[in-house]
Amino acid sequence: LKPIIWDNDNNVLTLLDQSALPFETTYVNLKTPEEIASSIKLMKVRGAPAIGITAAYGMVTALTSSSISTLDEAIKSLNNAKKVLDKARPTAVNLSWATSNMLTKANEAINNGEVKNVKELIDLLKSEAKKIFDEELDAELQMGIYGLEKINDGDTVLTQCNAGGLATGTGLGTALAPVKVAQALGIKVSVIAPETRPWLQGSRLTVYELMTEGIPVTLISDTTVGLVMYKNMVNSVMVGADRILSDGHVYNKIGTFKEAVIAHELGIPFYALAPMSTFDLKNTVNDIVIEERDPDEVRTVRGVPIAPPGVKVYNPVFDVTPPKYVSGIITEKGIIYPPYDKNIRKVIEK
Amino acid sequence: LKPIIWDNDNNVLTLLDQSALPFETTYVNLKTPEEIASSIKLMKVRGAPAIGITAAYGMVTALTSSSISTLDEAIKSLNNAKKVLDKARPTAVNLSWATSNMLTKANEAINNGEVKNVKELIDLLKSEAKKIFDEELDAELQMGIYGLEKINDGDTVLTQCNAGGLATGTGLGTALAPVKVAQALGIKVSVIAPETRPWLQGSRLTVYELMTEGIPVTLISDTTVGLVMYKNMVNSVMVGADRILSDGHVYNKIGTFKEAVIAHELGIPFYALAPMSTFDLKNTVNDIVIEERDPDEVRTVRGVPIAPPGVKVYNPVFDVTPPKYVSGIITEKGIIYPPYDKNIRKVIEK
Repeated sequence: LKPIIWDNDNNVLTLLDQSALPFETTYVNLKTPEEIASSIKLMKVRGAPAIGITAAYGMVTALTSSSISTLDEAIKSLNNAKKVLDKARPTAVNLSWATSNMLTKANEAINNGEVKNVKELIDLLKSEAKKIFDEELDAELQMGIYGLEKINDGDTVLTQCNAGGLATGTGLGTALAPVKVAQALGIKVSVIAPETRPWLQGSRLTVYELMTEGIPVTLISDTTVGLVMYKNMVNSVMVGADRILSDGHVYNKIGTFKEAVIAHELGIPFYALAPMSTFDLKNTVNDIVIEERDPDEVRTVRGVPIAPPGVKVYNPVFDVTPPKYVSGIITEKGIIYPPYDKNIRKVIEK
Repeated sequence: LKPIIWDNDNNVLTLLDQSALPFETTYVNLKTPEEIASSIKLMKVRGAPAIGITAAYGMVTALTSSSISTLDEAIKSLNNAKKVLDKARPTAVNLSWATSNMLTKANEAINNGEVKNVKELIDLLKSEAKKIFDEELDAELQMGIYGLEKINDGDTVLTQCNAGGLATGTGLGTALAPVKVAQALGIKVSVIAPETRPWLQGSRLTVYELMTEGIPVTLISDTTVGLVMYKNMVNSVMVGADRILSDGHVYNKIGTFKEAVIAHELGIPFYALAPMSTFDLKNTVNDIVIEERDPDEVRTVRGVPIAPPGVKVYNPVFDVTPPKYVSGIITEKGIIYPPYDKNIRKVIEK
C-alpha cells in the first residue's frame, strides 16, 4: 500500500485517490502546488500526517514546476505555494506546520550560505520532505514493534475508524502498525473493523487497506462491537488517537469510548497508538470542545437519505475515553502504562 | 400514529406502508387474504405483534372477500387463507399463532353451536381479531404506565432499534410506551434514537414515529451511543426485547448490549420492556443460537455499496445482555427487579 509516491527524477507526486476508495483504485499525478492543493481540498489525500507529507512535496513543486533562476524568486514562489496549500484545509495543523517548516528551512539555508543556487535549494527541500515522510514512517515502525509485544499468534484485533497507512500516508499507520509488523514477521493476526459511521472509514478505508495487504479482515456494523467482544472473538482493541491529555484521557474517532468501556468490563486490553506529537500537556478534559459536523452526514449515506429530512441530529466527530479504560498507550518511544498522570510526562521528558 | 386500521363496515384493512417509510407516508387498502399476505411478504407491515394482528384480519377477509353461504365453505376458505398467510413470513411465530387461533375459534364456535351461519361467524372472527389488537394495546398501555415510574419531567431516554408502535401495530409500542404515556400526561420527555445499522430501524422508523407524534427526538449514529451517556445527556435507557431467559438474559436487536454495559458503568438505569409472552423459561444462554443475516446488509446501505465487494462480514441480528446490566424488566404485569432467577418466575406464576 503506497498512498504517497514521490518521483525524484521527474518531480511528480503520485497520490492514491482516497476519495474514490474502495470502489476504484486510481492514482493522480501532480506537478504543481495548485494541483496538490486541489487534491488536498477534494480529500484525495486525508489524515493529518498524510496531508503534512503531501504539503511538504507541494512546496518542492513550487520550485520544480516553473523555471526559477534566482534564490529571491525561489523564496517568492515558496511563499505563494504556502498560501495556496494552507488554504486547501485551513484547520489541518499538520498542513501549515509542514509548509512553514519547509519555508523556514529554505530561508535558513539561504541565509547561512548552505545553499548557493536554486538547484541546491531544490535538493535541500527534497531531502526535507523526504525527512518528514521518513520520520513519520520510522515512528510508526517503532509503534509497530512496541505494539508487537501485545499480539500473540492467532490473535484478532478490534480497531475503530482508519488509523492505518492511508491516514498517515506511509502505508503503515498507527493503530494498524503492530498488525502489519506481525504479518510481515509471519505471525498470524486478523482484524475486526467496525464500519465507523457516519464517515464509514472502517468499511471504506480500513477494509480496503487490509485486504490490499492480505491481512484477514472482518467488517461489522458499529452495533456489533459489543457482541464480538462478548463472544470472545477479540483479543485486544487497538485504536489511534487525535489527542491525548497528560492524565491519559484519549480523544479519538467517535465510537472509541464504547469499545474501551466494553473491553474494560470484559477484561480485554485496550491500547491507544499515537506518536508523541499527539500529547497535549496544556489542556484538561474540561478545556476540550468536541467538534460537531454537518447533520446531513448522519441523515444520509453516500448521498442517499436514510432518515426523515430535517430530523434533529447530534453528530460529534470524536469522543473521549477516560484513563481508567486505557490499558496502555503505545508510542514510538515505548509503551506508557498507568498511572498516566506520572508516566506520560516521564516518557516525554526522556 | 395508526399503522393498522380495520374498517368494520366495509371490511377493509388499511396498513401504513412501512417499507416506504420515512420517505413516503402511504397507506394500502387490502380486502383479501392474498393481498394481506403479499403486504406481509413485502414488509409493508413488520414487527411480530403487528404481523399477528394483520394476519388475524387476513383471516376475517377470507370470509368477507367472497360470497360464502355455508359454514363448511367458510372453514374451507379459512384453511386456505391460513396457508396463504403463513407462507408470507414462515419464521414469524406471531403470524401462525394468530391464524391458528382464528381457525380454532371458528371451529369451536361452529361445533358448540355458538354460531349458526356465516354472518355470525364473521362477527365472531371480527371480534376475535379486535381482541388480539386490544390485548396487545392493553399490555403496551400497562407497560407504559409501569414504565412511567422511571421517567421524570425533562428526562431524555436513549432507545435502540424501533420497539415502537410501528413494530407492534398498535401505534404505542413497548420500549416507547412510557415515553408516549408521559407525553400524553404532559410530562416533558425526549428521546435519543441511534440509527441502528444495518437495517436503520432507528433513523427510518423510530425517528419517523416520534416526529409524527410530536415527541422531541435526536438521531445519532451508533458510534455516538457512548458519548451521549458520558456527557450526561441520557437519564435512562429503554429498549425492547426479542427473548428474555428465566435468569434475566435479554436478547434484543444488535447494539443493545453496548448500551447496557455503558449505562451500567456510568450508573444510568437500563430497562428492557416486553410483554410476558417474551419470556423463555425453557432455554439457557448456551441454547440460543444468534441468527446471522445476509452480509450485503453491512456491505451496502439502501442498495448503495459502502465497502469493497466480497469483504468478509459478520452480521448477527441480535445480541445478549447478561442480567447484571439490566436494572429492571418492565412488563404488563409490573416491573421485575433482580434477582431475576427468582423474580421472573414469581411474576409469571402470579
